[in-house]
Parts: sequence; C-alpha cells; structure tokens
Amino acid sequence: MINYESYLSVSGTRMQQSPIRQMGTVAAQNPDIISFAPGYPAPEAFAWDDYREIATSLLAGRQGGVLQYGPTRGHKPLLEFLVSLVGTRGIRTSTDDIIVTTGSQQGLDVIARLLLDPGDVALVELPSYAGAITAFRNVRADLVGVRQDRAGVDLDHLDSLTDRLAREGRRPKFLYVVPNFQNPTGQLMSLARRAALLEWAERRDMLLVEDDPYGALYFEGAATPAETRPIKADDASGRVLYLSSFSKTLAPAFRVAWVVAPTALASRIETAKQALDLCTGSFDQHMVYEACRRGVLDRHVPVLRAHYQHKCGVMERALRDRLQGQAHWMPPRGGFFLWVELPEHIDAGRMLERCLRRGVIYVAGRAFFVDGSGAHTVRLAFSAASADRIVEGINRMGEAFSEESAQPQAPVAVHQE
Amino acid sequence: MINYESYLSVSGTRMQQSPIRQMGTVAAQNPDIISFAPGYPAPEAFAWDDYREIATSLLAGRQGGVLQYGPTRGHKPLLEFLVSLVGTRGIRTSTDDIIVTTGSQQGLDVIARLLLDPGDVALVELPSYAGAITAFRNVRADLVGVRQDRAGVDLDHLDSLTDRLAREGRRPKFLYVVPNFQNPTGQLMSLARRAALLEWAERRDMLLVEDDPYGALYFEGAATPAETRPIKADDASGRVLYLSSFSKTLAPAFRVAWVVAPTALASRIETAKQALDLCTGSFDQHMVYEACRRGVLDRHVPVLRAHYQHKCGVMERALRDRLQGQAHWMPPRGGFFLWVELPEHIDAGRMLERCLRRGVIYVAGRAFFVDGSGAHTVRLAFSAASADRIVEGINRMGEAFSEESAQPQAPVAVHQE
Repeated sequence: MINYESYLSVSGTRMQQSPIRQMGTVAAQNPDIISFAPGYPAPEAFAWDDYREIATSLLAGRQGGVLQYGPTRGHKPLLEFLVSLVGTRGIRTSTDDIIVTTGSQQGLDVIARLLLDPGDVALVELPSYAGAITAFRNVRADLVGVRQDRAGVDLDHLDSLTDRLAREGRRPKFLYVVPNFQNPTGQLMSLARRAALLEWAERRDMLLVEDDPYGALYFEGAATPAETRPIKADDASGRVLYLSSFSKTLAPAFRVAWVVAPTALASRIETAKQALDLCTGSFDQHMVYEACRRGVLDRHVPVLRAHYQHKCGVMERALRDRLQGQAHWMPPRGGFFLWVELPEHIDAGRMLERCLRRGVIYVAGRAFFVDGSGAHTVRLAFSAASADRIVEGINRMGEAFSEESAQPQAPVAVHQE
Repeated sequence: MINYESYLSVSGTRMQQSPIRQMGTVAAQNPDIISFAPGYPAPEAFAWDDYREIATSLLAGRQGGVLQYGPTRGHKPLLEFLVSLVGTRGIRTSTDDIIVTTGSQQGLDVIARLLLDPGDVALVELPSYAGAITAFRNVRADLVGVRQDRAGVDLDHLDSLTDRLAREGRRPKFLYVVPNFQNPTGQLMSLARRAALLEWAERRDMLLVEDDPYGALYFEGAATPAETRPIKADDASGRVLYLSSFSKTLAPAFRVAWVVAPTALASRIETAKQALDLCTGSFDQHMVYEACRRGVLDRHVPVLRAHYQHKCGVMERALRDRLQGQAHWMPPRGGFFLWVELPEHIDAGRMLERCLRRGVIYVAGRAFFVDGSGAHTVRLAFSAASADRIVEGINRMGEAFSEESAQPQAPVAVHQE
C-alpha cells in the first residue's frame, strides 16, 4: 500500500471540503430535497432563447477565436465592455486594469497566491464568504475576523485589531469585504462605512479586496443603485482590488468573472493566471460578450431583481409564519441570501441533520466565521427554489426547529444560556 | 505612490511570464505574422456544424444543469464517458478516480499545490512542457532535469540523479513526463522505457505525473495506437497521475480536461479544485459530453490525424528545402510539434528577433530546459498555420537563419564551439 499522505504538501494535507459545495452535492444527488444551501441562480430565469440564438450565430460564423485558446487577460471586446460596465457603477478604469477570471473564485485564489505567504494575516468580516476563506486558508494565511454591525464592518474593532497586530509586528495584507448584499448575511454596507474603510486603508497603508457579485441585484424600493456604489469607485490612490461576475446575472455555467486592480497588480494577476488555466474559456467569453452587446444583460437584470425580490418575500413570509419570535433576521435589500439567527442554544449544524431527514438543507452559519462562532446561525438562499418549494422548505425547517428546540440541550449550549 | 511589491507573496514576486503565451500575444496582435509558436489546433478543423447543432439542442432543452454551477468533480455523464474513453487506452478506472479540470493546465497547477512544498524536488524531462515547469515553479519547487535520448527518459541519468538527491537527503515527489509526442520535442517514448519508468517509480517509491494531450494524434504509418499506450495503463499499484484533455481533439475553448489519479489523491484534487474555480464550466462540459456521445469525437480524430500529418509533412519538406544539413530534427510520429536543433553557435532567442521582423515566430527552446541549456533549439508548431503559410514561414525562417549564421558570433557562443 502506498502512503499517499507522505507525498502531500503542507497545504495539501490541510485543504478542507467546502461546506457549500458539500451541500450542493447532497442536493444534486436527491432532487426531492429542497435546497436553500448553495447560492445558485434560478434556472428558470436564464435567458435560454437568447443564448440559443447567440450560440447558433457564433458557431455559424466559424471565426477561429470562438473555439481557440484566447489571451490570458480575456477576450478583448469583452474587456472593453467591462470598462463601460464598471463605469456605470462609478469605476473609472481601462483594459490595463482588468483581467477576466474563471469565476470570481479564481480571482480570489489568484489574489491569495499573489499576496499571501504562509502566516500572513488577511482580515475578513465576521461572517464572510466561505469560498474566500478557503482560498485564503489554502495558502496558509492567518485569517482574523472583524466584527460587523448593521451598517457593515465595525471600524472601531478594525482599528483595535490593526493596532494589536501592529504591536505583534504583523501587518495584514488586506481586508476582504462583500459590501453589496453580503454572502452570507445579505447585508448592504452603508456608504459612510465604505468611505471609512477607504480612509482606514489609506491611513494604515492597507489594500482592500472588494467582492461584488450581487450589486446589480438590489430590490426596488428597498435599496437604490446609489447605495450599491462600490468602494472601488472612490479609490483614487489604487488600494482596492475589485471582483465581480456574470454568474448571478447571466449564468454560472459560463464561469466568466473579472478583477479590476491597480495596473501593477493586474499584470501580476495575468502572469499568475497563465499557470492556472492559460485562459478562461473562449466560447464562454464570446457567449457572455454577445449577451452584453446584444442587450441581453440590460434587459435581463431588471427581470432578475423582481424575480429574486419576489422569492425573498415568499421566504420571509414563510419564516414569519413558522419562526416568528424564535428566529431573527434582517430583511434583505437585494442579493440571494437571508441570514437567520436562531436562539443561541440551537446548534444549526445539528439541526441541519434533522432538516436533511425532512428533505430541506441550508448552510450552517459556522462555516462563515473564522473565529469559530456562529453556531446558531443559518444561511438560506432564496434564489434557486421555486416559490412553492420555498414555502414547503421553510415548513420542513420549522418542524425540525420545533423538534430541536424540544431536545434536552447539549452541555455547552446550556452553559451559554 | 503605493509600493505594490511590498504586498506580494514570495511566490508572487517570482512568477514569470510564459514564453509561449507571450508569443501567442504577439501573433494575436499581428495577423500577418506566421506563428509556429503556441500549440494551437487548426481552427478550420473544428467540428463547427456539430457544435452548432449540439448548442442549439442543449439550449432548447432548458435543462437547468446546462447553465448552472455543476459538481466540482465534473458532469456525471462526462465522467462516466471518460471511464470508457481511457478504457480504450488500456486504463481501467472508475469515476472515483477521475476529476474534470479546467484545461490540463489546472490539473498541473492543482497537482503542484497538492504535492509540492517550497524547496521540494520535482523531476522533469530535458526539455519539458513550459506550462508544467511554470506551475511547479509557482509553488517554489526545485526542478531537476532528466536527460532524454531517442527512446525517452534516460534511466541511467534518472537513477544517478535519484541517488544523488537521496545522498543529499532529498526525495523527489514525482517525475513529470509527456510520453506521447512530447511537448516540446514531439518525441514518442518507447514502450520499454515506459515500463522501466514504472519499475523505477516502484523501486524508488516515487509517483509519476503523465501528461497525455496528444496520444490520440498519432500519424498513420508512423506510429500505432499500441505505441501510445499510457504508462497509467500498466500502473497496478497506483503510482501514476494521468492527465489528458479535449483541447487538441475537440477544441481548446471548452477548457475541458481531466485527471485520473489514485482514489485518495483524486478526492484531494477535488477538494483543492473547489477553491480554484468551484467547477469547470457546465455548458462546456455539456458540449463536450454531447460531442462524445454523438460520435463527433470518434469521427473527428481520424480526420485530425490526417490533417496534422499532412501539415507536418509540409513543414518537414520546407525545412529540408531551406535548412537541410544545417539544422537537425527527428521526424515527428504524431502530435503538433517539430523540434529543431540549430548549430550550437546559433542562439534561437536572438534569431527569434530577426524572425519577428520577417513575420514569423516560434518558441525558443531554452524555455523548456530547467537547466538553462537548449539555447540553440527551436519548437515549431505545425498545427495551426495553413500549408501555404507553413511554407512561407519556413522560408522566412530560413532567411533569418542565413542572416544569423553570417553574423559574427557572440563570445559565449564562440567559446562553446
């Protein structure tokens, strides 16, 4: 027998399964399960007919580049479109500062590799996106969590952490934030807090990594486009690396996302990406570019806003019917997620097992906390399931919650009360 | 001004531009340039009509998974097809041992990260594929080159290297090889040499990483399928990680490749890939699977064999006309590449500048040697250019060669003579 462990790198021995992907596998294997776990967009809302037309004309055109290797930085017309797209979000940039990535996950991975050595500190929100946490952990960075309040990152906590780290002789490389409809909390960071973060980065000589997959998906009447203005839009001195994606607006299957970064870092990212996958799929990039050029994106995004706002409302009403007064949540103002805080003595991980038996799943919130807290929290994605299944799923969850609440509590939980 | 260098990881500061990608950029920016540089498949040989039909029916079908995130390991039907595909190459495996990757470049990257710590030794052929070299270097591995002769890896040299490393207390993690129509030399490793490598791995308790993008593209009458039998096919004890790809047989744009690995390592690769890009593009995987299921791959590969054999013949004839007796090469028996050894005093990198001015490019061979040798070698890809342009390109190269030969030689080169 070969001892494969003996061949692994230190990082290799430590890599952890993604709890989101794990739940995705559970759902895929059993279509009867109602899944609030991965943040999947609604398949019924994809622009199927537009893509069929686009694919047909691209392949009839027989233009070699459609099926060939492409430039590592991305399909040139798409890069140019992205300059104008981020322009509508207030970001003034050029193609020198943009790189197409194979999903934003690749953007996070490449940033991690480019910036973080083992033991380096990266700051993340409490809670933060699990995929970013894993990417940063895989390069053996030391992740330090910053508290959030209802307006976003807690600046006092951030400053005291930065001071403490400085006393220990450690400078964090960056703070990672998801200001728009955060994954996992759905929270919208206030504009004042965004400005304060930029000021902090300047004062502390720090970088910000701003992840913005959901900004376009604000809910009418609940948030305005102005409130989703990226931090990057006001980044005069080049402190922000900005990530965004077509996965939530067009389709995740295309794996087309992008990074806007200061020119010097953008060219480093391009070099690093050469060894990751040579280039993001050309056919996908052509599909996405054509969808942008032909106005599919512009026509489609308002439809999606209404679609997700409706589903969010359905989920909230079902939660009020089943869990009013027992669980707490902030009404989302956009995005895919509803973040639920159960009573502190309920372990969301243990309750998930009950839910699974009843045919409903979510992601237990602890996965999003780098400090091991959050055992009583739950991330619910309202994006993928149909309205009927959302109601049914929350009913099942409600039953599991009642059962779990009736159980004698584990010693640790009792102690917490 | 922000000093971005101060934020970079050690790996980040050391990442190097790919010489192949660099030349690809040069060619893309100037369509008049005849490019023998990147190993691009021939766009006129893509199965355009089949893909159009497949895309149309996939998108008309509106089956959610086509445009959704997919499982990290890969689209299930494609994984099952891959079991049978590698079965035709003599490899007995199951879906537990296969992972779809975003191009083989991602397979190389993930293997590097999983197996190599900074300072670890990986063995590679002299010369070896530049993309693998970069992936291994990006995790700061120490690359040691093993000589090749006309039959493949030189086993005596391999053994003496392994002994020397053992005396230094260093165990290489693996040997990376491209036995079929190697990139860059085009060479086909003998079956005896393959068996000897497996025996070496067993005796030395080592792993082999076998990269096989070109195996299906043998030339009729020059090589037989039996001669392309992967080392993995005889890997009874689980020492071989095998990579292959659809980039050279269907299209590179799809970025669909795969790894076959011992189960324990396959699941590690899956976990690592979660943080790299979550999953390989679903639309691409569906396109590729349908092309396999509908027989496009089977019908197409014989056409490609003839296509590339023809182009190879055109290039060889042109080389004989222009450089007979001055340059040397082994007639390729398959694949995309013709490996040319110029007289030792000619620097292929310097000659490339002359070629560029005359409108033809290649990859200077030094990029493929981890020991800094190979300055007088050239990798020519005959795969992408049309027959006419191949002749014209070799003529231009011949002129550049004559000019370069007439130059007074640089001191170093004179010294070598």
